[in-house]
Amino acid sequence: MMRVGIDVGGTKIAVGLVDGGNILAKERFASYPGAPQSTIADMAREVKALVSAHGLGLDQIGGVGVGFAGTVDSDAGVVRTSANLRWTDVDVRTPLSSALGLPVRLVNDADAAAWAEYRFGAARGYDSVVAITVGTGIGGALIFGDRVLEGRHGLAGELGHFTYEPGGLPCGCGRVGCWEQYCSGSRMNALAAERLPATNGLATARDVDPLALAGDPVALGIFEEIGTALGAGMASLGMIFDPDLFLIGGGVSESGELLLEPTRREYTRQMGLGGFPCAKIVAASLGNDAGIIGAADLGATAR
Amino acid sequence: MMRVGIDVGGTKIAVGLVDGGNILAKERFASYPGAPQSTIADMAREVKALVSAHGLGLDQIGGVGVGFAGTVDSDAGVVRTSANLRWTDVDVRTPLSSALGLPVRLVNDADAAAWAEYRFGAARGYDSVVAITVGTGIGGALIFGDRVLEGRHGLAGELGHFTYEPGGLPCGCGRVGCWEQYCSGSRMNALAAERLPATNGLATARDVDPLALAGDPVALGIFEEIGTALGAGMASLGMIFDPDLFLIGGGVSESGELLLEPTRREYTRQMGLGGFPCAKIVAASLGNDAGIIGAADLGATAR
Repeated sequence: MMRVGIDVGGTKIAVGLVDGGNILAKERFASYPGAPQSTIADMAREVKALVSAHGLGLDQIGGVGVGFAGTVDSDAGVVRTSANLRWTDVDVRTPLSSALGLPVRLVNDADAAAWAEYRFGAARGYDSVVAITVGTGIGGALIFGDRVLEGRHGLAGELGHFTYEPGGLPCGCGRVGCWEQYCSGSRMNALAAERLPATNGLATARDVDPLALAGDPVALGIFEEIGTALGAGMASLGMIFDPDLFLIGGGVSESGELLLEPTRREYTRQMGLGGFPCAKIVAASLGNDAGIIGAADLGATAR
Repeated sequence: MMRVGIDVGGTKIAVGLVDGGNILAKERFASYPGAPQSTIADMAREVKALVSAHGLGLDQIGGVGVGFAGTVDSDAGVVRTSANLRWTDVDVRTPLSSALGLPVRLVNDADAAAWAEYRFGAARGYDSVVAITVGTGIGGALIFGDRVLEGRHGLAGELGHFTYEPGGLPCGCGRVGCWEQYCSGSRMNALAAERLPATNGLATARDVDPLALAGDPVALGIFEEIGTALGAGMASLGMIFDPDLFLIGGGVSESGELLLEPTRREYTRQMGLGGFPCAKIVAASLGNDAGIIGAADLGATAR
């Protein structure tokens, strides 16, 4: 049966009509901070339009999954906090479900994306997956034996915020030395601005990629530094989880082997020091569609 | 139905006849490095003797669980490595099961002990539990939704070996800066020898407790240092897992609030920096019996 997946990001909301691992149709519209009730009404309207444009009725839809960029209480169907949209304790499930007459399941967006990779993408066939999303910050998701670990407050898998260096760099979260301060897109922006020549304003993370591909040693050194910190943190996660697979996604991971080569090297080096077995490391394969597909698939078990 | 639990440690093996969370009878005997086949034969003989001394036949026993101090492949019933007993790739399940005519399940000893606390002890009623065993080193176990995470190679929950301080103290495992180098019994021994007055030879961890209880500031400082490192590491684990509960067991935890007070303080302080919710922290309640009880209970699902 077809389902609907909704990916609620900080600036855009994507709605997709999904059949298994395939998106049959999708639409995007802008999201704005605050105004949760009108945003939920917009979501319901877009779902109806998308389903009807595909010649279907809502009674032909098996369920709706919503992946939300923030902390969610999945059992309650409530968004607890959201840095970008600034929603606090917003019940998404009740109004959306009643507007559509369909069961709705609310999950975290990183969990949804990792779930899609686990069911239909690069993580398919693995039992235990530590998913690391390297974007502006570092997010993540933990999948073990067909279950996403959500944690007591929906915070499990906040991998960017374990302490990488005690007393180290201050983090936006308020803590100190968090892993994401050493290997996220923000760190890459900082290193680019500091070390690469300015052209139109300061260099950013976007400038590192083409320079590194052209063999520029400074740009390659930035990837080396970012990848080494990523791999070192993964060695810690490897000791804690002993997973089958590390799945690396997010914007920074689109640089592919430029990032993954030093990452793998440092992870393998550190595990090797103790003679510990290494997990496989792969890049996510579904791109931006993962959030919609995973939300729709998790929506199949809507309560 | 009654079951048998066997706790295989580095120097002793304990065999217990178990009914739910209660040990009806138990026996202990010495274990020696090497000689796995004769040790397994000893285990079978002790099980038969214990069951028969209780007026029962083996046909009245529902299954046997073996908790082993080492790396185990639970699916295969095989001990992969064991630092103390020096077993490598030893099939425990097949010979023990055929000697007893009973199903046998082999698990890691820290997993068994944590499982007992989850089913019958201090962790009862919690869905997600991060168990930390503070002994000579630091072990652990991860329980989520009625399942123990074992990991691909039986290494999940090796919590003592995530990197606490990059480039820090060398660890016996071959890696560097591992958590257990900062808050285990070994660290306490080292601090005691360094800071407390020698009486019969150098002071050890055992001397810290009575001195701290008597208000000795140096001994209290040692607990402060160990507890602070323990709590700081738990903040990292808290960000990764967002568990319902941290369960603290092992020999060092027997010092109770001397250890737990600074541990809780540092954990709460670090989580508070980011406004993150704290998990509950409790001491294990079943003591040395936990290994037998948990192994027996996990043995109920013997394959």
